[in-house]
Amino acid sequence: MIESPSNPLVKAVRRLQRSAAERRSQGRFYVEGPRLVLSALDSAAPVEQVLVAPELCRSAAVTERLAALRAAGNGPPILELTAAAFTALSERDGPTGIGALVARRERGLADLTPRPDALVVAAWDLADPGNLGSLLRTLEAVDADALILCGEAGTEPEHPTAAKASMGALFRVPTVRTTAAALLAWARERQMVVVASSARAAAAHWADGALEDIISGPVLLLLGSERAGLPPELLEAADRQVRIPMAGSGTSLNLAVAAGILLYELRRGRLP
Amino acid sequence: MIESPSNPLVKAVRRLQRSAAERRSQGRFYVEGPRLVLSALDSAAPVEQVLVAPELCRSAAVTERLAALRAAGNGPPILELTAAAFTALSERDGPTGIGALVARRERGLADLTPRPDALVVAAWDLADPGNLGSLLRTLEAVDADALILCGEAGTEPEHPTAAKASMGALFRVPTVRTTAAALLAWARERQMVVVASSARAAAAHWADGALEDIISGPVLLLLGSERAGLPPELLEAADRQVRIPMAGSGTSLNLAVAAGILLYELRRGRLP
Repeated sequence: MIESPSNPLVKAVRRLQRSAAERRSQGRFYVEGPRLVLSALDSAAPVEQVLVAPELCRSAAVTERLAALRAAGNGPPILELTAAAFTALSERDGPTGIGALVARRERGLADLTPRPDALVVAAWDLADPGNLGSLLRTLEAVDADALILCGEAGTEPEHPTAAKASMGALFRVPTVRTTAAALLAWARERQMVVVASSARAAAAHWADGALEDIISGPVLLLLGSERAGLPPELLEAADRQVRIPMAGSGTSLNLAVAAGILLYELRRGRLP
Repeated sequence: MIESPSNPLVKAVRRLQRSAAERRSQGRFYVEGPRLVLSALDSAAPVEQVLVAPELCRSAAVTERLAALRAAGNGPPILELTAAAFTALSERDGPTGIGALVARRERGLADLTPRPDALVVAAWDLADPGNLGSLLRTLEAVDADALILCGEAGTEPEHPTAAKASMGALFRVPTVRTTAAALLAWARERQMVVVASSARAAAAHWADGALEDIISGPVLLLLGSERAGLPPELLEAADRQVRIPMAGSGTSLNLAVAAGILLYELRRGRLP
């Protein structure tokens, strides 16, 4: 039982929530709340340790699951904390009393096994962790195969805000990181139609022939950064460019919203 | 020139960013950054005061605009602050050196003048300010007439996160607050087709006849809360219910993403 708010693990977990460099150096990340912890356990994510403050945790589903883990005896270690220690470790406004440490894996294109009719999304320099989380949720909803992150800057699914916004989809949608050149070579090899989203494209996404002929895949959808869109080398390499029509000048859509509109067009009529 | 980080205005502005009750009692709200301040000035929002820290403000567009305001002499007062005072007032990680205090107006249905073919969205108990901001951005992009907020709980466009996520759309999309009963009476009076978004609806949003016959409006789209969806009285009062198809069970979409998908279906082929 960890009792002290100044326990080294408490401090280490707090650092994990604040810094991507810390997540890389510790080789793990922290998720909190019943939904994320259960998602991690259900999806066979590499959970290193479950952290629970019995005084705080009010979730019957979690209590049941932890009892089953203890009974089976082959799951990850379950560490108990006092309410004070858990509250010190949590960055949430209302600490939920349940968290997990999960190993952070660096994954690349070689870790993906897209289906022949795959729908894959690649995002360039995606900066906002809330957008990343929403995007993962949408990818799960449209049964996409993977998310590929490109670019120098950018956030990661292991960021606490991204994990929370994903509602657990970060454990179910494979996400890898690569370069633009490697991405394009990978897509060509798989005969994917590469579609770039661009505010300056001539074709509206809902126009005849813009996307409807490729809804059976395989498709790679390229999304630009919130700030600057796609870099020229990706725009030019795309087989087609589409824009989402908008009223007025200077208007724009949130990146996750725009992605949702395009992904639903690419799956039009194909979801239950 | 305000020099001290403990100046009463500095403290008052900090409180405005932290509490809706404070925004109500002061009767104003605070926005920060070039885009939001210029949006407020451009849209003739009731700007009470512009706050600028010349040492911090790097935006040429803002500098130009403030010079024009000073020359015209009939704009809102422009108050200068030291970098220390501005940094103390700002809740942003990187203070931008430019902010504005804007009068907060309580508006109701009587303040709206929807077009005969209006597209209006009503959101029930919308809790997340980032979602509200993204939604306002989408409403602007689809040329919707207004956003109506209903329910007891919920956030508001004047929340700093909502204002920022809206990219200034909070100053351009009329937003009012009312009750569910008043909303329905208002929609009936205007012969609006009331469409409810519901995960349990039989009709897919893209099915034949689900929405395509009403893209010329007038339409009221009802969105439920992130947590619980729409209450029974609104679901039952709707002329039709639609769901967005999703793969798997237990998957769901972010509210702003779902709204974007439905709004683009309701404007299909009708935007430039």
